[in-house]
Amino acid sequence: MSELLTKAQQLKKAAKTLAVLSTNEKNEALAKIADALIEQKEWILEENEKDVALGKEQGLSPALIDRLQLTNERLMQIVDGVRQVINLPDPIGETVEEWTRPNGLRIKNIRVPLGVIGMVYEARPNVTVDAATLCLKAGNAVLLRGSSSALRSNKALVHVMQQALAHSAIPADAVQLLEDTSRETANQMFQLNEYLDVLIPRGGAGLIQSVIRNATVPVLETGVGNCHIFIDESAQKQMAIDIVLNAKTQRPSVCNAVETVLIHENWPYVQELLAALHSKGVELRGDNTLFSSYSFVHQANEADWSTEYLAPILAVKLVKNVKEAIQHIDQYGTKHSEAIVSENQENVHLFFQSIDAAVLYHNASTRFTDGEQFGYGAEIGISTQKLHARGPMGLRAITTTKSLVYGTGQIRV
Amino acid sequence: MSELLTKAQQLKKAAKTLAVLSTNEKNEALAKIADALIEQKEWILEENEKDVALGKEQGLSPALIDRLQLTNERLMQIVDGVRQVINLPDPIGETVEEWTRPNGLRIKNIRVPLGVIGMVYEARPNVTVDAATLCLKAGNAVLLRGSSSALRSNKALVHVMQQALAHSAIPADAVQLLEDTSRETANQMFQLNEYLDVLIPRGGAGLIQSVIRNATVPVLETGVGNCHIFIDESAQKQMAIDIVLNAKTQRPSVCNAVETVLIHENWPYVQELLAALHSKGVELRGDNTLFSSYSFVHQANEADWSTEYLAPILAVKLVKNVKEAIQHIDQYGTKHSEAIVSENQENVHLFFQSIDAAVLYHNASTRFTDGEQFGYGAEIGISTQKLHARGPMGLRAITTTKSLVYGTGQIRV
Repeated sequence: MSELLTKAQQLKKAAKTLAVLSTNEKNEALAKIADALIEQKEWILEENEKDVALGKEQGLSPALIDRLQLTNERLMQIVDGVRQVINLPDPIGETVEEWTRPNGLRIKNIRVPLGVIGMVYEARPNVTVDAATLCLKAGNAVLLRGSSSALRSNKALVHVMQQALAHSAIPADAVQLLEDTSRETANQMFQLNEYLDVLIPRGGAGLIQSVIRNATVPVLETGVGNCHIFIDESAQKQMAIDIVLNAKTQRPSVCNAVETVLIHENWPYVQELLAALHSKGVELRGDNTLFSSYSFVHQANEADWSTEYLAPILAVKLVKNVKEAIQHIDQYGTKHSEAIVSENQENVHLFFQSIDAAVLYHNASTRFTDGEQFGYGAEIGISTQKLHARGPMGLRAITTTKSLVYGTGQIRV
Repeated sequence: MSELLTKAQQLKKAAKTLAVLSTNEKNEALAKIADALIEQKEWILEENEKDVALGKEQGLSPALIDRLQLTNERLMQIVDGVRQVINLPDPIGETVEEWTRPNGLRIKNIRVPLGVIGMVYEARPNVTVDAATLCLKAGNAVLLRGSSSALRSNKALVHVMQQALAHSAIPADAVQLLEDTSRETANQMFQLNEYLDVLIPRGGAGLIQSVIRNATVPVLETGVGNCHIFIDESAQKQMAIDIVLNAKTQRPSVCNAVETVLIHENWPYVQELLAALHSKGVELRGDNTLFSSYSFVHQANEADWSTEYLAPILAVKLVKNVKEAIQHIDQYGTKHSEAIVSENQENVHLFFQSIDAAVLYHNASTRFTDGEQFGYGAEIGISTQKLHARGPMGLRAITTTKSLVYGTGQIRV
């Protein structure tokens, strides 16, 4: 039998045991994972070094090498992450709703694990541990499909986790790495409806689209973010500048960073805003008016309005009013995070009501679209789809419910 | 441009208008639909008669003809259904959760429409109106893709609904019928991610699997139900008989009817139960022991354990204990509705904890898995998947949420 099918069957079996464990049993197992990661640190870093060496040999870009690289510090952050997951409240068993029907039937919806989760992700080895421990905490088994460039690192991390689980109530089989990283096997995995309850892709737009195109297993789509900030005529000068600088420069490589700023044409501080961005090293790509008005603004082309730069580059455009801003976001947005900076409540209301996105902000940075910032603790990703979970996804997003109905012999008439 | 693309664009535009209408505006529009269906009754029945005549000519089975046929009474039931939808509470705009973060950000999750819903269904023309009005009430535009055998009926019903909407706040374009019923166009529809937010297939297993296999648009999978009842050793005689008779015979053609009954081998009333079923005209297909013990029991083959009969046929099997019942359901169930009749609380607990299904019953008929019986009002279908909605889906299942975040200049540090 193929590696994929063998592991899928082991996972389905392990998921049954895992689903009914107590919070304590799960937390003790996670603590063993944290300890084992520390104990096996040297070996994990050695295996990671082999991936890094091979990546350099194969000419991976410095940015990709950086994502792939583990260090002592990064490994300790991973361990801290596991300990944070231990401290999160366990969603399993929660009563979501309970009511009694006129015929006396008592209905109770309780929260249960999804079952087996397929994680599909790119080179960051930290996802291997972050995702696995979140899945386990919510009672789910997990099939990890990372990229071939991180195979040695992922094998080491999964081996350490499985060894730790072997001494815990969670079956060691509940975490599996798909070592065959071929595209054919990935496509088989995406259609393994009998064994996998959901796929969660994490990575660039190409990876996510490939999963959506090929999957028959339900997908929790995560985060391409072409995020906008609209600065209204009435926006406070310093607040607007602070928010845009934060949303663009605090961490440009993430999906909740801003990519296009739309500015009301009558806002008096356009120059101050653009100069502040320029002085922080942000490359500006402007519409024709801005391009011809400011020497340091490059000319934007059509593609700029749809680009998720993930870099210190920002598209900027003047608009006539909030309606034109809404139309622009409707056309180019990815339904992730959109902000309005304004002192005009009517415009805020219109913006909030009209725009179809996971998170809308009034007078705040788009950078808050994040599980921890929302108060959910660690996140499994940020959903940009509308079904099941929207926006930052915490532990509850990787659970489902079942209805328990208590009767005394009721039949339907 | 193709019919599909033209209508998809009209729907997306109409959805924007519809999303922000008040409950009153939506209810007034639905009342106009109810009135128009009555006014245009004769014409609708004439058009339906043409479908029926053509179906007979083409040799459709009497059962299919019966599903296709509209009568004065059935049309009035459809109108009653619309009036029930008017009376349902409007989920749109509900605050689902609201909290304030330590940095002062106020986060409010509110309920909003999904957008444009694609309904894919088989010959029953009542679905055309039921589904359309539920979608509209929850603020969604809807693309209806019925079967070619009901094309004239569906065209008439959609024409009447659109005419009614033309005099209301809801754009007439918010309800569209895909008249091209070719398989190629259906597959295009299933991949129209730019315009459709969700697909809801309603029909047999073949239809549902075809949508899942071909769709890139997220799917809300509905209800194939291979439902079981387990009669434990301690089950009360009359209660068990009443529940099984109800679950099998009250309406055998629906997904929440029971298809296999598992009986504890020490339950003393096996003969009484089987005789009661036999006397009600239920064909029994039993395991070897039951087959050799009762002259009126046929021999079941392996396929019987997986068959959703949707007819007065029942598979029956003796099991050693609750664990064997759970294993059987694990292997053959479709995660729809499973019941235990028992006076042993420990066994009930084990059954409820172990079985992965949308709805579990203790001492009640499986026939209660239904939006109205759950108290949700009319239902758009019964979900057998685990994401987004599980079990009976009412209006809330065709909504999503968005997070509104109110700040005073917060930036991320």
